[in-house]
Amino acid sequence: MRFGKLLAWADLAGVFLFALEGAAAGVRANLDLLGLFVVAFATALGGGMVRDALIGATPVAALKDWRYPVTAFAGGVVVFLGPGITGSVTTIQMVTLDAAGLSLFAIAGAMKALDFGVPSFNAVLLGGLTGVGGGTIRDVLLARVPTVLNAHIYAAAALLGAAIFAVGVRCKAPANLAAVIGGIACFALRMAAYRYDWNLPHAL
Amino acid sequence: MRFGKLLAWADLAGVFLFALEGAAAGVRANLDLLGLFVVAFATALGGGMVRDALIGATPVAALKDWRYPVTAFAGGVVVFLGPGITGSVTTIQMVTLDAAGLSLFAIAGAMKALDFGVPSFNAVLLGGLTGVGGGTIRDVLLARVPTVLNAHIYAAAALLGAAIFAVGVRCKAPANLAAVIGGIACFALRMAAYRYDWNLPHAL
Amino acid sequence: MRFGKLLAWADLAGVFLFALEGAAAGVRANLDLLGLFVVAFATALGGGMVRDALIGATPVAALKDWRYPVTAFAGGVVVFLGPGITGSVTTIQMVTLDAAGLSLFAIAGAMKALDFGVPSFNAVLLGGLTGVGGGTIRDVLLARVPTVLNAHIYAAAALLGAAIFAVGVRCKAPANLAAVIGGIACFALRMAAYRYDWNLPHAL
Repeated sequence: MRFGKLLAWADLAGVFLFALEGAAAGVRANLDLLGLFVVAFATALGGGMVRDALIGATPVAALKDWRYPVTAFAGGVVVFLGPGITGSVTTIQMVTLDAAGLSLFAIAGAMKALDFGVPSFNAVLLGGLTGVGGGTIRDVLLARVPTVLNAHIYAAAALLGAAIFAVGVRCKAPANLAAVIGGIACFALRMAAYRYDWNLPHAL
Repeated sequence: MRFGKLLAWADLAGVFLFALEGAAAGVRANLDLLGLFVVAFATALGGGMVRDALIGATPVAALKDWRYPVTAFAGGVVVFLGPGITGSVTTIQMVTLDAAGLSLFAIAGAMKALDFGVPSFNAVLLGGLTGVGGGTIRDVLLARVPTVLNAHIYAAAALLGAAIFAVGVRCKAPANLAAVIGGIACFALRMAAYRYDWNLPHAL
Repeated sequence: MRFGKLLAWADLAGVFLFALEGAAAGVRANLDLLGLFVVAFATALGGGMVRDALIGATPVAALKDWRYPVTAFAGGVVVFLGPGITGSVTTIQMVTLDAAGLSLFAIAGAMKALDFGVPSFNAVLLGGLTGVGGGTIRDVLLARVPTVLNAHIYAAAALLGAAIFAVGVRCKAPANLAAVIGGIACFALRMAAYRYDWNLPHAL
């Protein structure tokens, strides 16, 4: 458990941001109170639960540790009670929240995978999976084509962030430095891609 | 394994009811024989498999124990052979089957989570997840927006039942008494919400 | 680990074929480069990851072993670079690739389940689940009703192949002979059902 404390921070911060974003998506989809919490939980905890089940970290953190569901719940409450939040959540705010959550989860996913002895290359993929997992479950629940499949550079940003972190750790850089640089790179790439409408090439 | 025998009963009864309901949903969706069994299995075993994978009870019960798939299979056969069942499955019958399965799985999910050392609060969430899991997988397969997201009080009923059970066990009530009261509360709330069109508030 | 080497071959060959097919489906759905790889990975590795999480073979092979993601990646690259492949992937080619992948995964799934002490009957079901899992995840991601629910004999073919293998092993036949016969039976049944429009009966 090399990354114990750093991992817990990145993971819980990601849970909170994705809970905010999932709850806001639930409000936009006109769900009722519990539907809103279901989407907030699925978005916030889904990626990490899939990650933990796949690497055998069971019971998964989201169930073993009360801080996870409580943090997700807190995010849902903030959105539910937020004055006038319904009308005022702009798309750019949603994209920003999502990009921040994506960055945190990409790094946390890669960290935890390395902690469980997964090889570096696969840890990067698991970082990407953790990052996009919750949002993909959210989109499937709301019966939308997942962002990950047609967004401006989305999973690519998560993979870049996780890769920078994994390479940094491999090169003996301090873990928190590697994590911060990887996270910022992921966030910056995702936001720039959204802002400037960057896209990956299509097969012709 | 405090709840061993009680758990097995609640779990298998839930499997049978959800298999009936999943198979009936398959018939309504005009699936072929095997599609019907796939939906019956997914509805009946999906919630428990997700639960077991998340708490690390692997190989999951649905695969380790032959009684699970055989019970689900039996439910599918009953629906397939039932005379005139296709035309005659009413919506209220589907809702009743679903509410009964939901109640059994909510209790069984919370039980098994406690057996695996998950804290009480999270065990309640896992009860809810086990209850709504199979039906959600069914709805995703049939490309419908999941009931859990827009139904009259649905996951809320599962969480209430699981919470009553967990609190009862915490207060040293006999486990089967707590299970029966929790299960009845879940069933009653779900059916009343359906009948009287109760809904949770929406965020404004 | 009775089937170690045979299992690795069947599994990796299935990964390559499903990656080709998933990537081709991504091209047809006009996804961008990474979306194409996401679908290729999900199709190729999804079934095996679900299988491994359910039987407790964690970290799952797709993450523990670098050969899995690299093989899936190779399949995606072949499709992306393939000259003129976009316009020229015919439906029959897709069905053939899919049937071959289905056969390999059905056998590999049953093998690995037996290796992990799952009873024979359930191992057959797990073979079926492994076979149809990746394609089902692909269809859910692309927001299509899964092939498994409405195709000409699809899961039935996977179950037949897995059953032949499991019975063969039970009767002390050489494992690779049982695997080859089971795989061919699955492939032949699926292709014949497609060609001659065979369907299972519907409930009336």
